[in-house]
Amino acid sequence: KPSAIREIFKYAADPSVVSLSAGNPAPEAFPTQKVAQITADILRDQPIDALQYSVTEGYPALRRCVGDYMRQKHQVGRAFDDVLITAGAQQALELLAKTVLNRGDVVLCEEPSFVGALNAFRALGAKLVGVPMQEDGIDTDALEQAMRQNPNARFLYTIPNFQNPTGITMSWEKRVKVYELAKKYGILIAEDNPYADLRFAGEHIPAIKTLDEEGIVVYDGSFSKVLAPGLRVGYAIAPKELLAKMVVCKQGEDVHTAILPQMLCERFMNDPGYEEHLLFLQSLYRRKAGLMADLIEQHLTPCGITYHAIQGGLFFWCRLPDGVDMRAFCTAAVRDHKVAVVPGNAFLTDDKAPCQSFRINFSTPTDEAMRIGMERLGRFAREYITKG
Amino acid sequence: KPSAIREIFKYAADPSVVSLSAGNPAPEAFPTQKVAQITADILRDQPIDALQYSVTEGYPALRRCVGDYMRQKHQVGRAFDDVLITAGAQQALELLAKTVLNRGDVVLCEEPSFVGALNAFRALGAKLVGVPMQEDGIDTDALEQAMRQNPNARFLYTIPNFQNPTGITMSWEKRVKVYELAKKYGILIAEDNPYADLRFAGEHIPAIKTLDEEGIVVYDGSFSKVLAPGLRVGYAIAPKELLAKMVVCKQGEDVHTAILPQMLCERFMNDPGYEEHLLFLQSLYRRKAGLMADLIEQHLTPCGITYHAIQGGLFFWCRLPDGVDMRAFCTAAVRDHKVAVVPGNAFLTDDKAPCQSFRINFSTPTDEAMRIGMERLGRFAREYITKG
Repeated sequence: KPSAIREIFKYAADPSVVSLSAGNPAPEAFPTQKVAQITADILRDQPIDALQYSVTEGYPALRRCVGDYMRQKHQVGRAFDDVLITAGAQQALELLAKTVLNRGDVVLCEEPSFVGALNAFRALGAKLVGVPMQEDGIDTDALEQAMRQNPNARFLYTIPNFQNPTGITMSWEKRVKVYELAKKYGILIAEDNPYADLRFAGEHIPAIKTLDEEGIVVYDGSFSKVLAPGLRVGYAIAPKELLAKMVVCKQGEDVHTAILPQMLCERFMNDPGYEEHLLFLQSLYRRKAGLMADLIEQHLTPCGITYHAIQGGLFFWCRLPDGVDMRAFCTAAVRDHKVAVVPGNAFLTDDKAPCQSFRINFSTPTDEAMRIGMERLGRFAREYITKG
Repeated sequence: KPSAIREIFKYAADPSVVSLSAGNPAPEAFPTQKVAQITADILRDQPIDALQYSVTEGYPALRRCVGDYMRQKHQVGRAFDDVLITAGAQQALELLAKTVLNRGDVVLCEEPSFVGALNAFRALGAKLVGVPMQEDGIDTDALEQAMRQNPNARFLYTIPNFQNPTGITMSWEKRVKVYELAKKYGILIAEDNPYADLRFAGEHIPAIKTLDEEGIVVYDGSFSKVLAPGLRVGYAIAPKELLAKMVVCKQGEDVHTAILPQMLCERFMNDPGYEEHLLFLQSLYRRKAGLMADLIEQHLTPCGITYHAIQGGLFFWCRLPDGVDMRAFCTAAVRDHKVAVVPGNAFLTDDKAPCQSFRINFSTPTDEAMRIGMERLGRFAREYITKG
């Protein structure tokens, strides 16, 4: 079934709608000059490499570069691990699910969670079991209960940093606890970290994968947020035997990821300006997130709408007062007031379950669009909530 | 399970081995200058479009361009059809299988056939039922019998032009018959046409899809052979309702195909030099196929090895005399005599079944490599077959 997000996107395609519903990087975040220069270099130096068939595992120089960087900078990856290049982190998640799930097996996931991943698991016949989120990440008591109650749970899907949609970051204590529970119950962890380099406040917290001496964590990274999502380049860092099975599935899906984009990522990562580019992204999103937080406080807080503070990522998660019909609010907002947000139930394992929250994005709209959109949303919220 | 071709590739990675086992386009077939120029133009004119997230269905301008071209030049596609851009034709096949197959359903296929497609169907739990090939294409009597005997057959997988691995082209009479049978038995046809534009001899034969008034044919095309396989751009032309389901599956796999490669294909197709490029490819492969045919006649025919004449594509299919152990021959050839061909059983639905044939590729090796490789193969064949 098509995702609820796609339906909202259709309304939001109306050019008079201000879209706060996307999850796209800011267009000004793309290093377009650098991309043009590197691409020209590749097509001058290695045109045949860039155009010919390649190997399913990924461009060898990129695999090495990602492996070295993640091991040296983030202590992610052991001797038993390897790197598989995928068509975005999305494919890394889908391949893992295809490899380890049988139809009817359970995937444990944060509730709410990224709908693109949930839909991929659903399409493979997985049963999704949601575990509630708290301010400092997944509820680990509920997680242990879910693990006990679902002996056919194959893996836990988690986004520990600046989770989509809630923006919540899992504490270090909970990361340790989640790892211990997975070990105890013999369950894999799919650690999805697409926003890894988009921390603009607070202290870095090491990945769950840094704890992984047992080879039970599949770490998924992406170039979508640090370089460009249109390139569709992501990766999985996981034990070699598991990756070998994922490679066979990938071969059936697309033979390999497009090679020119892979070469571009490799040269970009090795460019002397790479770390500076990450700092630029952080400062860009810090500013935009700050503006959006101000606009929420100005327009939504007075109506009793609450939100989570965030330290990175691309989203705010806002909660309507009890008794207000969230779905009707979001639909009327886009249809009648030309401002699109994503209704929170889109991110639930059961999208019919009660939900008071909606997601706001601040990376895609311009500052001006954010101001106009939030003004519209605030005006409508005052009217709707007061009347309601 | 990994494909037998991959195993041969591992032997063939030894630089002293002459590889006649690949299926790669000739490196000199890549329009590298044109690619560099078009890519620079795109990144100058539309950098954000080339880098941002896009829609799962594919770059709209490319979908239009492919749809118009195929309808106008090849009478492929009706009002009920649409175009989906995929990560190579491989993904188009895999998405179709994912969409229409339940575990245990049957896929009818030519025997032998393209192992990459067979493996994708296998990975989804399909049961493969092979139908023998004849000089003018699939045995339609055996096909009807297979359709009758397998009421859970969901589609027939066929490569009507210059089939991989046999090089055989299906006659127009058989295309009509195959279509009528599919209609009669309520089975879809997956018409895979990656070598469409690589006809270098004989008369063009219209695609099965040109007959498709009922909406039962999924036509798969690719830019891998006409532009570059490393770009991973292919497409499916099929009824809209079926494509809508494939789109949902694709969303779970990779969100969308990398956008810069799609934009490159679109500008390349619309380039005034496009038709001339196709003529260049045909003349290149005509020459290389001619050289390989000469080398087969010189080195293999005297040993009693026979082969199919071809009118296009990238492969020759050679048959060892009865009684010669084909698998042992191919293994010894690569291991002891440093020339790699693909053992024919790799292309069978049951790779343990008897098979006397092997596949030779003439597009990837240089002329010099072909001469050396075929001389080695001929010398070994004389020794092996005479002794055997």
